[in-house]
Amino acid sequence: MPEVEKGPLGRRRGRGARERILGASQQLFRDQGINRTGMDQLCAVAEVSKRTAYQHFTSKDELVAEYLRRFDPEVLPGVFDRTDLTPRERLLAAFELPPSTPLCPYLAAAVELHDPQHPASEYARDYKTAIAARLTATAREAGATDPEQLGEQLALLIDGASVRTRVLDRDSFPTAAAIAAIIIDNAIPASSAQQPGDDRETTAGPARPTR
Amino acid sequence: MPEVEKGPLGRRRGRGARERILGASQQLFRDQGINRTGMDQLCAVAEVSKRTAYQHFTSKDELVAEYLRRFDPEVLPGVFDRTDLTPRERLLAAFELPPSTPLCPYLAAAVELHDPQHPASEYARDYKTAIAARLTATAREAGATDPEQLGEQLALLIDGASVRTRVLDRDSFPTAAAIAAIIIDNAIPASSAQQPGDDRETTAGPARPTR
Repeated sequence: MPEVEKGPLGRRRGRGARERILGASQQLFRDQGINRTGMDQLCAVAEVSKRTAYQHFTSKDELVAEYLRRFDPEVLPGVFDRTDLTPRERLLAAFELPPSTPLCPYLAAAVELHDPQHPASEYARDYKTAIAARLTATAREAGATDPEQLGEQLALLIDGASVRTRVLDRDSFPTAAAIAAIIIDNAIPASSAQQPGDDRETTAGPARPTR
Repeated sequence: MPEVEKGPLGRRRGRGARERILGASQQLFRDQGINRTGMDQLCAVAEVSKRTAYQHFTSKDELVAEYLRRFDPEVLPGVFDRTDLTPRERLLAAFELPPSTPLCPYLAAAVELHDPQHPASEYARDYKTAIAARLTATAREAGATDPEQLGEQLALLIDGASVRTRVLDRDSFPTAAAIAAIIIDNAIPASSAQQPGDDRETTAGPARPTR
């Protein structure tokens, strides 16, 4: 990677060019979409020349894939690595996003790119599999009878909440969390569910099972 | 609308131009996405001149909105108007799509257009509200304690299945249907649920509530 590079304005330089391109892509892909963002605009916002951009990324496709790889490499550590929550609480914490959270970038890429063989679509698939795996591991800790099934179900709920928030232009995570509470209770035998620190008393809504 | 029009090849004419443009949009938007489909290609596939296309649709935005309005104006009549099914069976039938069903076009438009004020995004919102309303009406017939809540929850599951099928490149409707069976059983008091023709015996999987 070149040590010194100049953007069109000559104001910034150094090996930060790659980071600036990735930063610009994160902002522009989120705010206006992947297909509506061209390399010209990306270079202008990143303050790099197109020549420099293509030294770092041979194509926009490669940039899109790297943008996704950078987005959440640890797979929701703020949810799954919390030691202050019970496993069941961690499963529900996956639905606690700020209301203004944009559409999941992996879903957005899969929809926008429209090609399951695109490197970014492949990465989106890997990421979604990784989320389901973390949910499955947590469901196992929580004592679920069939943790793989619960993990996949919760992963689908997260994706449903994300895309429905976009289409309705209204936060749908509370709806998904209410479903999650029901299927978690349904999947965990009563003996495993009642553990110290269990939050069933405080989080259950009117839709909770009556058993 | 002009009675006679010629496409670039002069092979087709008549007031079918509008229909051919809409037919071409349905095919191209589904197969390659909205943003990746330009008016030039739409006109070529529809065999109309650009002049003719712009006589029918003042902009591509207007065409996209009309494409969505035409897609399912009756809101899943093949599910909700079936008289051979119980209400509970109709709720579950909403998840029985052929595995090759493409991503829901209303979700695709909301993601691709990236603008909640776009006429097509507004229509997508209306459509999603209409689906939830039909699910709610059916949930009420099925005896749900809170039919609005169940309707919104099932609508989210359908959207989740659709977008997850895209991102995983694998049919996710069975996963959503399994969740639907759980929340339907949870939302309908046992006395209402056990009605003639009830299918609980045959469709319940291992994840069904044990009550």
